[in-house]
Amino acid sequence: MGEYVLRSIGAVESPLTDPSEAPRQGDEGAPDAWLVFEPAVREGLRDLGPGTEVLLFTWLDRADRDVLTVHPRGDVTRPESGVFSTRSPHRPNPVGLHRIQIVAVDGLRMRVRDLEALDGTPIVDIKPVLEPISDR
Amino acid sequence: MGEYVLRSIGAVESPLTDPSEAPRQGDEGAPDAWLVFEPAVREGLRDLGPGTEVLLFTWLDRADRDVLTVHPRGDVTRPESGVFSTRSPHRPNPVGLHRIQIVAVDGLRMRVRDLEALDGTPIVDIKPVLEPISDR
Repeated sequence: MGEYVLRSIGAVESPLTDPSEAPRQGDEGAPDAWLVFEPAVREGLRDLGPGTEVLLFTWLDRADRDVLTVHPRGDVTRPESGVFSTRSPHRPNPVGLHRIQIVAVDGLRMRVRDLEALDGTPIVDIKPVLEPISDR
Repeated sequence: MGEYVLRSIGAVESPLTDPSEAPRQGDEGAPDAWLVFEPAVREGLRDLGPGTEVLLFTWLDRADRDVLTVHPRGDVTRPESGVFSTRSPHRPNPVGLHRIQIVAVDGLRMRVRDLEALDGTPIVDIKPVLEPISDR
């Protein structure tokens, strides 16, 4: 298997610190949070402004990478599923995907809505939500 | 900046070998392709069957990681944008995100529709498309 090195481009600042208290998805009662970026990627961020909806990619650094099956949503009354059919953070490569809205930008800090990632979670990428083909 | 190691869980088999000929997104005329997985992750795949729509995460191993601004869609008549406002493969962490449909499964091989990734691209994760909250 090949190995590739992700380098964090920033980190999440959030009131969420306990994995057992974090919502499972951002639209299930997650708080606002700050994204704090490294100065090295400043130019890449220059077109992101308030109101923009983006896909945030994180590295879920507290996940267990040896897990291949889980009870969906941690509910032991549900039969186990293969992790690639779930959004469990526990998986061989724990890349987090979060659809969020930017509400404010202050230099290298961005305020965002509805992010379920824990405080200190490394950020690895941001991509735009894709528009319909006609608008690309 | 923190560093994290991605380990490929498989690779793409595709007729696409030349970056200049690959479509920019999967819904812009991309061919069918095979995903070929490592035996080590077999259990994680067990609930993925034909007809399932999933998000495929790849590592775009031919990307330039030092790029922070690009002309959108490679069109030099358009002004440069920060890479985090584009889907350019060239970015600090070239994680590819592809929404695809599984059309057949044969052991560790999956036939998929509309994948613009090049032949040999490493696979790092698969996640389900999220259902509405009421169905989770």
